[in-house]
Amino acid sequence: MQPFDLVIRGGTVATASDVMACDVGIRGGRIVALGEGLEGGARDIDAKGKLVLPGGVDTHCHIEQLSGFGLMNSDTFESATRAAAFGGTTTVIPFAAQHGGMDLKTVVADYHVLAEKGALIDYAFHMIIADPHEATIAAIPDLVAAGHGSIKVFMTYDKMRLHDEQLLDVLMAARQSGAMVCVHAENHGIITWMVNRLIERGYTAPKYHAVSHARLSEAEAFTRLIAFSELIDQPVMIFHVSTAEGVEVIRQARGRGVKVWGETCPQYLFFTADTLDKPGFDGGKWCFSPPARSVADQEALWHGLANGDLQTVSSDHAPYRFDETGKFFFSKEPNFKQIPNGVGGLQWRLPLLFNEMVSNRRMDVNAFVRLTATDAAKLYNLAPRKGSIAIGADADIAVWDPERQVTLSDDLGRDETGYNAYAGITVKGWPETVILRGDVIVENDHLKAKPGSGRFLPRGGGQAAKPTGRLAPEMDPARNFGAELY
Amino acid sequence: MQPFDLVIRGGTVATASDVMACDVGIRGGRIVALGEGLEGGARDIDAKGKLVLPGGVDTHCHIEQLSGFGLMNSDTFESATRAAAFGGTTTVIPFAAQHGGMDLKTVVADYHVLAEKGALIDYAFHMIIADPHEATIAAIPDLVAAGHGSIKVFMTYDKMRLHDEQLLDVLMAARQSGAMVCVHAENHGIITWMVNRLIERGYTAPKYHAVSHARLSEAEAFTRLIAFSELIDQPVMIFHVSTAEGVEVIRQARGRGVKVWGETCPQYLFFTADTLDKPGFDGGKWCFSPPARSVADQEALWHGLANGDLQTVSSDHAPYRFDETGKFFFSKEPNFKQIPNGVGGLQWRLPLLFNEMVSNRRMDVNAFVRLTATDAAKLYNLAPRKGSIAIGADADIAVWDPERQVTLSDDLGRDETGYNAYAGITVKGWPETVILRGDVIVENDHLKAKPGSGRFLPRGGGQAAKPTGRLAPEMDPARNFGAELY
Amino acid sequence: MQPFDLVIRGGTVATASDVMACDVGIRGGRIVALGEGLEGGARDIDAKGKLVLPGGVDTHCHIEQLSGFGLMNSDTFESATRAAAFGGTTTVIPFAAQHGGMDLKTVVADYHVLAEKGALIDYAFHMIIADPHEATIAAIPDLVAAGHGSIKVFMTYDKMRLHDEQLLDVLMAARQSGAMVCVHAENHGIITWMVNRLIERGYTAPKYHAVSHARLSEAEAFTRLIAFSELIDQPVMIFHVSTAEGVEVIRQARGRGVKVWGETCPQYLFFTADTLDKPGFDGGKWCFSPPARSVADQEALWHGLANGDLQTVSSDHAPYRFDETGKFFFSKEPNFKQIPNGVGGLQWRLPLLFNEMVSNRRMDVNAFVRLTATDAAKLYNLAPRKGSIAIGADADIAVWDPERQVTLSDDLGRDETGYNAYAGITVKGWPETVILRGDVIVENDHLKAKPGSGRFLPRGGGQAAKPTGRLAPEMDPARNFGAELY
Amino acid sequence: MQPFDLVIRGGTVATASDVMACDVGIRGGRIVALGEGLEGGARDIDAKGKLVLPGGVDTHCHIEQLSGFGLMNSDTFESATRAAAFGGTTTVIPFAAQHGGMDLKTVVADYHVLAEKGALIDYAFHMIIADPHEATIAAIPDLVAAGHGSIKVFMTYDKMRLHDEQLLDVLMAARQSGAMVCVHAENHGIITWMVNRLIERGYTAPKYHAVSHARLSEAEAFTRLIAFSELIDQPVMIFHVSTAEGVEVIRQARGRGVKVWGETCPQYLFFTADTLDKPGFDGGKWCFSPPARSVADQEALWHGLANGDLQTVSSDHAPYRFDETGKFFFSKEPNFKQIPNGVGGLQWRLPLLFNEMVSNRRMDVNAFVRLTATDAAKLYNLAPRKGSIAIGADADIAVWDPERQVTLSDDLGRDETGYNAYAGITVKGWPETVILRGDVIVENDHLKAKPGSGRFLPRGGGQAAKPTGRLAPEMDPARNFGAELY
Repeated sequence: MQPFDLVIRGGTVATASDVMACDVGIRGGRIVALGEGLEGGARDIDAKGKLVLPGGVDTHCHIEQLSGFGLMNSDTFESATRAAAFGGTTTVIPFAAQHGGMDLKTVVADYHVLAEKGALIDYAFHMIIADPHEATIAAIPDLVAAGHGSIKVFMTYDKMRLHDEQLLDVLMAARQSGAMVCVHAENHGIITWMVNRLIERGYTAPKYHAVSHARLSEAEAFTRLIAFSELIDQPVMIFHVSTAEGVEVIRQARGRGVKVWGETCPQYLFFTADTLDKPGFDGGKWCFSPPARSVADQEALWHGLANGDLQTVSSDHAPYRFDETGKFFFSKEPNFKQIPNGVGGLQWRLPLLFNEMVSNRRMDVNAFVRLTATDAAKLYNLAPRKGSIAIGADADIAVWDPERQVTLSDDLGRDETGYNAYAGITVKGWPETVILRGDVIVENDHLKAKPGSGRFLPRGGGQAAKPTGRLAPEMDPARNFGAELY
Repeated sequence: MQPFDLVIRGGTVATASDVMACDVGIRGGRIVALGEGLEGGARDIDAKGKLVLPGGVDTHCHIEQLSGFGLMNSDTFESATRAAAFGGTTTVIPFAAQHGGMDLKTVVADYHVLAEKGALIDYAFHMIIADPHEATIAAIPDLVAAGHGSIKVFMTYDKMRLHDEQLLDVLMAARQSGAMVCVHAENHGIITWMVNRLIERGYTAPKYHAVSHARLSEAEAFTRLIAFSELIDQPVMIFHVSTAEGVEVIRQARGRGVKVWGETCPQYLFFTADTLDKPGFDGGKWCFSPPARSVADQEALWHGLANGDLQTVSSDHAPYRFDETGKFFFSKEPNFKQIPNGVGGLQWRLPLLFNEMVSNRRMDVNAFVRLTATDAAKLYNLAPRKGSIAIGADADIAVWDPERQVTLSDDLGRDETGYNAYAGITVKGWPETVILRGDVIVENDHLKAKPGSGRFLPRGGGQAAKPTGRLAPEMDPARNFGAELY
Repeated sequence: MQPFDLVIRGGTVATASDVMACDVGIRGGRIVALGEGLEGGARDIDAKGKLVLPGGVDTHCHIEQLSGFGLMNSDTFESATRAAAFGGTTTVIPFAAQHGGMDLKTVVADYHVLAEKGALIDYAFHMIIADPHEATIAAIPDLVAAGHGSIKVFMTYDKMRLHDEQLLDVLMAARQSGAMVCVHAENHGIITWMVNRLIERGYTAPKYHAVSHARLSEAEAFTRLIAFSELIDQPVMIFHVSTAEGVEVIRQARGRGVKVWGETCPQYLFFTADTLDKPGFDGGKWCFSPPARSVADQEALWHGLANGDLQTVSSDHAPYRFDETGKFFFSKEPNFKQIPNGVGGLQWRLPLLFNEMVSNRRMDVNAFVRLTATDAAKLYNLAPRKGSIAIGADADIAVWDPERQVTLSDDLGRDETGYNAYAGITVKGWPETVILRGDVIVENDHLKAKPGSGRFLPRGGGQAAKPTGRLAPEMDPARNFGAELY
Repeated sequence: MQPFDLVIRGGTVATASDVMACDVGIRGGRIVALGEGLEGGARDIDAKGKLVLPGGVDTHCHIEQLSGFGLMNSDTFESATRAAAFGGTTTVIPFAAQHGGMDLKTVVADYHVLAEKGALIDYAFHMIIADPHEATIAAIPDLVAAGHGSIKVFMTYDKMRLHDEQLLDVLMAARQSGAMVCVHAENHGIITWMVNRLIERGYTAPKYHAVSHARLSEAEAFTRLIAFSELIDQPVMIFHVSTAEGVEVIRQARGRGVKVWGETCPQYLFFTADTLDKPGFDGGKWCFSPPARSVADQEALWHGLANGDLQTVSSDHAPYRFDETGKFFFSKEPNFKQIPNGVGGLQWRLPLLFNEMVSNRRMDVNAFVRLTATDAAKLYNLAPRKGSIAIGADADIAVWDPERQVTLSDDLGRDETGYNAYAGITVKGWPETVILRGDVIVENDHLKAKPGSGRFLPRGGGQAAKPTGRLAPEMDPARNFGAELY
């Protein structure tokens, strides 16, 4: 056997299905051996008493992106992926975000430039489509073929949202290219109506953000989206599920055979709407959409993750500074609607989930790996290269100290958000050493990688995006008077 | 006891709950006695072997109305109410239809002029709101106070439909005035997308109308509307339910306490989508929206009526001639989207339902009365004046011969549609003598009333339109950080 | 017109569908006229300011019956029907109760003797079948033909309950005779297991009765019974629904087309389990089965009544004295399982419901009439003779003073229970004058009728007991390899 | 690194989550290395072009067991485990079956004797409890502590079934010992009633077996069992789910948080009831319970497996010879009820599933491994020792040729059933070499192991059998008036 470049020795390795005490042998950036008593490598890392887990795959994060508010995220690819690396994450899927009038191919090319320059970890892109005019639709097949196998669309936000017909157009285009479609699904009318009514009456404090996104707006939009998914027979991924009713809508649709996937995020698992109820404008730090809900919703989300109704937990990292350059960009005394939506999370997602799932034993380490890495990679067709500790896979590994306790704070943050929404929470379990393709990128709380060392991961839509073949009657020539509509 | 003006003698009287062999004594336009062996009146009608039923209340019909297509109905108030009278119906609720830019009070006033001149039977109006700008919303309280206790809105049709926010505005305005809101609920995006896709590919025949209104578009819109109804806590009436899934959505919402009412129409109970599949353009006669569905849907609708999930059957009379003046107004060789939507039914609703419910014993005569008169009157606050044979009620009565068999035909029609979609069906049971406020208006197949003899029936929203008091969390100050949003 | 024997003048008459200001003319024991200003009769009753309603039909009450506990009810036909009359009820359906080894025809004959001698109001019988051996099953057709169109069975109580196979036998026999089957549906195993476990551990106070009948035992038994009903295609009436989950099970079954009917009782609408939590053994007064539940269950029951999921409210009158002759028959210090189950209600059902439904406006007077008289009569095929104020019907009428306030007390009771579970509740609305077949039987708080004046009401199963015709696959020769199993 | 005893070289290894091209190094009966280019072992097996999968874990099979019919299975431990080994299965969980009056510890000891003598592969036992008298219940903790962490009970079969109270007793005993409870859940009353009715009328052919087990009997029993599980808060595994309704009941229970697991078997995935419809008595070969259903049920089962509603596929191997020594033991011309229930499957389970899931691409190889080995091992607490290819696990491995096509036939069978219910089906994919704890036990279609070489696998109930902690109100002292009932 050829010598190893690196051996992680004596740890406990976990995959989405197994836990095993063994060494990990790495060569050429890939995992090439798992075993008891492997020969020494060029370098050995002692992982005794540690958990050796796949690096996290965070499939929903906004990096160096202009928001629908017209405000740039506070993170660059460098700062965001730095934070991710410190949090044990080695792969991200941020967005290449089209805005009105933009050419989609140009948009994608522009984001490639940014990422190539700054990224410290590997990446792919979801293409945000906000203007699905003819040329946009026409560009989709080439872009999917070039490795951008997923599309993101919005059902709310004035400047980003697609009307129902546009949504159907995108779903059909995705079906024809084999791409996954990810959706921010909330009812835009309810939100706008509530926002206006609240502000007219002077209810402008940050906490009214939670009121404005009425919980009915989530289940409604899910139901509508699922109807479209059924009509077209195109799988969809519903982003950031926040309510028990939302989980239930997904569950029932899956039960009757619809291919719908669901994601949630730490902010929905660890916060409630009351978090927004702070003196002054401080609650604005927790302005993200949909908003955090209640403890009962948290339980429903955990149950959905355990039961398979939801398949992954991402960060929805959307960092804005909480000063005049960021969340208060537009106004010194903003109403809640003027506060850019989003919260940083790339660095905190894994420690928060590890603490709750593994240390607090809510689930187990297999489930932690599955929900934060393996199934995330499978859903977006990054597997088997990413998302697991398996022979042949990229050696993307985080060595966790399951006993290390850390109290999260603003200071620990390696992104440029300037605050940490989770500050004050003490977690047990910490990713100490983080390895990307066999290279140690974080060690002893220091960064070891250089900007630009991350690589683009081309991928098609993959298995999760494949249609079911069960056609709606109106799309089935045998039942629609012979019309061929695909 | 004072002498009667009219006695209907020897028949079998049915109400929504009872069946009784008795005479009916009428004085001053009202029913003043029910009894065995009443004294003779100024006139006696022999009803031996006949069923004496309340005149029908048809709460959904388009009369002398400009459609969203820009085409006038083929019926005037005179012709439509003449047809209604011959069909055993003595009260109608047509529409006062606002189009874009119109002043709502003027619209209502204009329709009053038309109805006063032409109506042969009594009437009220639903106000169609297609342009809910500020002045429209502001006019609602006065108009409801003036006796127009119900509003109709559309979720589809390019020129008529309300966006979600507008729908919420109207629901809130209705709540504040105590009005019922009736809704044509189909997903506009699905329909438009399907229409475009069908026509682009050359599927232009009338039968593709049924394909374009994908059945998913109904359950989707019901679900969305019900979410709005729950948010505002405003009762809604869903018009012309056509699918089993639609019934189920209503049923489940009612089960969890939402105040949602449902209507269906004879075209959904007696036709299927195959009716549209005729040679040439003949299928265009059955172009109405939503379209007829399947036999399984018919059964689900009947079951919904029996079970109380749906509460009334109206005609949705929307007459267009099937010639160059009507359905083919726009084009000699229209595609299905150019065919005005609607079918005549004011005259046929009751005989068709009587035949199926009473003669064929699908339900019973109490259910027939309940679904076609009593509950229709209660839902729209016309009771106790209309909708039943009860002491004090207007003497609006149809004397039915339960044995008379009639084969429906174009020639029998008393409206101006020029064709009868139900031609060829033989029914058993026929309204022979029709009485309005004590006056015989149809007898021996002759009309006895004069245009303008119908009267306007002012009414508020009534009991069916009352909110439940169960507030959505976001609308409840105890749970929304104190915001007062009503 | 012939002169009337009796005229009720100037009141407000209500049926299940209508409310009308009119006089009621009675001749020969029947209602023969409703009208404004009827001629005077041999006697006139002034009903100005009063509600003139049909006498109540109480379709579930235990009279002069040996319970499964081996204890005789405290009421005879005379005392029970006296109480009923004072409560505005003019028809009862008690039980002819078979116990193990008894001959069913003999049982029925014996109860006839008791009722003929004592009854002050009209009556029919449900036949309780506790021992469905061959001869019992064989006797059913004759007994149904003789006018006993309904059967009652128990799924719990050691000495009364039927095993599943026996239940299927009875359902099939009922189907073949056209009888309704009424069921006490609770899971016997859960209750027995809970009872034993509670008593073993010393939890013997009356309140543990509520614990022993775990709420799961209701929904479980309903589901099982409904499965049997579907298999045989035999309608069933589920007695005394007590839980929200029970209502939901019924609702969903009805939604998919099963013919299942539901009843609840005042004790479930006005009491909660906490009622049992009294010092000493006093809670034993509220020992009935199933037990009262929670406020949320009360709301679900009211909603079920409004929505049509439940169709009637009966008393389940089951009177036992709360002294050594009754509830404490077996033991001076009984555990909860030794306390005979049941509570008196024949006299209180209507005032309690009138107060809540009419005076407190929870529903309306039509609903009150429908749920306590009209639909009760229809369900058990007593209509059109009983249950409504309609021409030709028996003149069974209660004249209610809607303004009279009465505080219920033990002293007011006219039965032999010796206590009033509802004592202390003040109701508004009281049945002042009660008329049976044209004879005043209660007036000025005095009884005017003699024992034995009540008459037996023969009836078959009627419409509500008719099968649907939708066969389970295993019972359908077209789908069961040709087996003919009916 | 120490030398390997055995290396499986060049194959494609799959776990429940990963697929990897690598060698497998085995030492001391355990897997000690996975890697590219491992050093040679004492023996090397060339697996180029092959799939290297964990040996199957078959958690439901009847071996050397006296059935409720009083007939011994046709297989001994030797013959059954021989068949299993040839089918790629290396671990079985058969039953230690108590019958009425037997002492449970003696029963378990007896089965140990049989298995120790005959077993060729590793094994554990489910304890069948058919007589849960006090001593039986008392024996459970010791037996669980001795490694028998699961109990099997029957809700049907005259001599085996538990009444509801007994079922509750067993569930409580299991909860207190931490054991899993597996259940044959069908409504006994329905089946008995149908059997009697069919046989009385002369419908005795084997196909009426399918009619007698009406599909309603499955969903009913599941619902009842789940109610018990909720009451006690004790996880249950529902064996051999056969209907779409059954899957749905499980799905909804899981959705509301009940810990219920589901299993199905090849006979429900590959057969329908029509299989029983053969000339003469040949259909008797397919007499098993519940019976096979329809193609729609097969689809629902596959969907349930994909969606996570069902977690494993076992064989329910229950072999009876189809001659005078077996299925026709009782009668030369049996009616269907006299035919012992069961079908052989230990050998066929994996090839059938591999063919459909992997070769026909219905699912994927990870799902195949998960459903037939990994999750089976986890559910019954055999992991991490069994069920996966992971460092440290027992080297239980089947090397599959994914291209080999085999037509199943009676002759291929290595058990003593004498017929193969799946004969005639051609599968693609075959387990060529089977390894148990590092020893080759099947190779070149020859058996290499000796009887008695299988080992007992002691295990407690494990994670899957842990209560949820969500107590039913009646079991929760905070809500049941303080009663402590656990």
